[in-house]
Amino acid sequence: MNAGQRIRVSHLLRPEELEARLREIGAERYHARHPFHLLLHEGRLTRGQLQAWALNRYYYQSRIPMKDAALMSRANDPDLRREWIRRITDHDGSGRNTGGMERWLKLTSGLGLDADYVRSEEGILPATKFAVDAYVRYVRDQSLLQAVASSLTELFSPGLIQERVAAMLRNYHYVDEKVLSYFEARLTQAPQDANFALAYCQKHATTPAAQQEVLDALYFKTGVLWAQLDALHFAYVTPGFIPPGAFVPQADDR
Amino acid sequence: MNAGQRIRVSHLLRPEELEARLREIGAERYHARHPFHLLLHEGRLTRGQLQAWALNRYYYQSRIPMKDAALMSRANDPDLRREWIRRITDHDGSGRNTGGMERWLKLTSGLGLDADYVRSEEGILPATKFAVDAYVRYVRDQSLLQAVASSLTELFSPGLIQERVAAMLRNYHYVDEKVLSYFEARLTQAPQDANFALAYCQKHATTPAAQQEVLDALYFKTGVLWAQLDALHFAYVTPGFIPPGAFVPQADDR
Repeated sequence: MNAGQRIRVSHLLRPEELEARLREIGAERYHARHPFHLLLHEGRLTRGQLQAWALNRYYYQSRIPMKDAALMSRANDPDLRREWIRRITDHDGSGRNTGGMERWLKLTSGLGLDADYVRSEEGILPATKFAVDAYVRYVRDQSLLQAVASSLTELFSPGLIQERVAAMLRNYHYVDEKVLSYFEARLTQAPQDANFALAYCQKHATTPAAQQEVLDALYFKTGVLWAQLDALHFAYVTPGFIPPGAFVPQADDR
Repeated sequence: MNAGQRIRVSHLLRPEELEARLREIGAERYHARHPFHLLLHEGRLTRGQLQAWALNRYYYQSRIPMKDAALMSRANDPDLRREWIRRITDHDGSGRNTGGMERWLKLTSGLGLDADYVRSEEGILPATKFAVDAYVRYVRDQSLLQAVASSLTELFSPGLIQERVAAMLRNYHYVDEKVLSYFEARLTQAPQDANFALAYCQKHATTPAAQQEVLDALYFKTGVLWAQLDALHFAYVTPGFIPPGAFVPQADDR
């Protein structure tokens, strides 16, 4: 495989071959490899940069249940809906169960950001919104198969999350386990979700063209995640060009 | 009010005035008044006509969770989503709980229709699909307020359901309570849903133009329900012009 060139499906792949191709894409393009994440994990971000990361990522979290509802609005198979709906309650919470969004707010609050400011979405980088909104639209507008396949970055998230939690606890004295509770829940939720989505794609992508769609959806989604970190890096790391209206770290957090 | 003329909001209505206008629309246009329902309740439908009704109404049921997911895909307020999601589980079921769609299949099966045939959607009248699909698209494309308001026909459904259940048990010897279990569940679900949606519209329609949107959404939705019965009436009652490909009652069910 030439790095940078997309994989082309020329003949029908067996299920395990399709999975192997997906994992190749992850190895090349998943945002675990983004320079911003390397800085994050090496303890080289200032508190203000961590805040900017958590703030912008909040916008992504806030749109995930809408993305999942968009997928369900297109699924006329009740079995698919009954499986997929758990993703929404995982994020929104239900009854007395706290959801992922509330846990993400624990992180932003733990990092010193006001929850109302975070929820207002005012300080979010426009580029974050463009990337995330493109994801929601993609799930609404492309084929149902692609909508499902675009969730497959979750195949790669447990590794990243484990690395991140350990690194953040080690490198940032103001971060503790309580503040990182979001990630702990994802360690069990993400594999469950990813396994279902992978099996769905393996079952329903029954032509080379459909398998290409699955790969393309993952290419698209890795771009969505990567672009968010690009925007953070450009605004808050180097050259540090914060666009007008976006969150500005306080002087002593720089 | 002139029958046939739409209510125009010329100044901001108090919450109870808005509700009164909505109820006027229901009194004039809710499909409880449709001639097909009158025949249904008077015991004047053949078994084949009842089958056609239950079959076509299945398509409406099958799209309701997709409609509700479309609404949730547009709601960035987690509280709204946490309330609305119950509608989906009510219809799809969850865990060991049977949902409304499965209960509707009890009705179609109880009336003698094969469940696979019903699920295949093959015999559904095209006009049914057009009306129902228009509803899903409306919820996806119009304002969120209108999406919520379009559910307000549920304000009127408990009365219709109570009348229908009593009338069907009285007038059709092959119908029993078990077969009608769908309706019993709706008697508690619909008021809960309708009260929330009404309160939402009263709270969020804070200008005359927004209140007009709420009324217009209900006008639209009463049209969606009415048009489905028009299509049934034309195909299966008088003149009984069944379109090609649509369900044809067996001779002894006519």
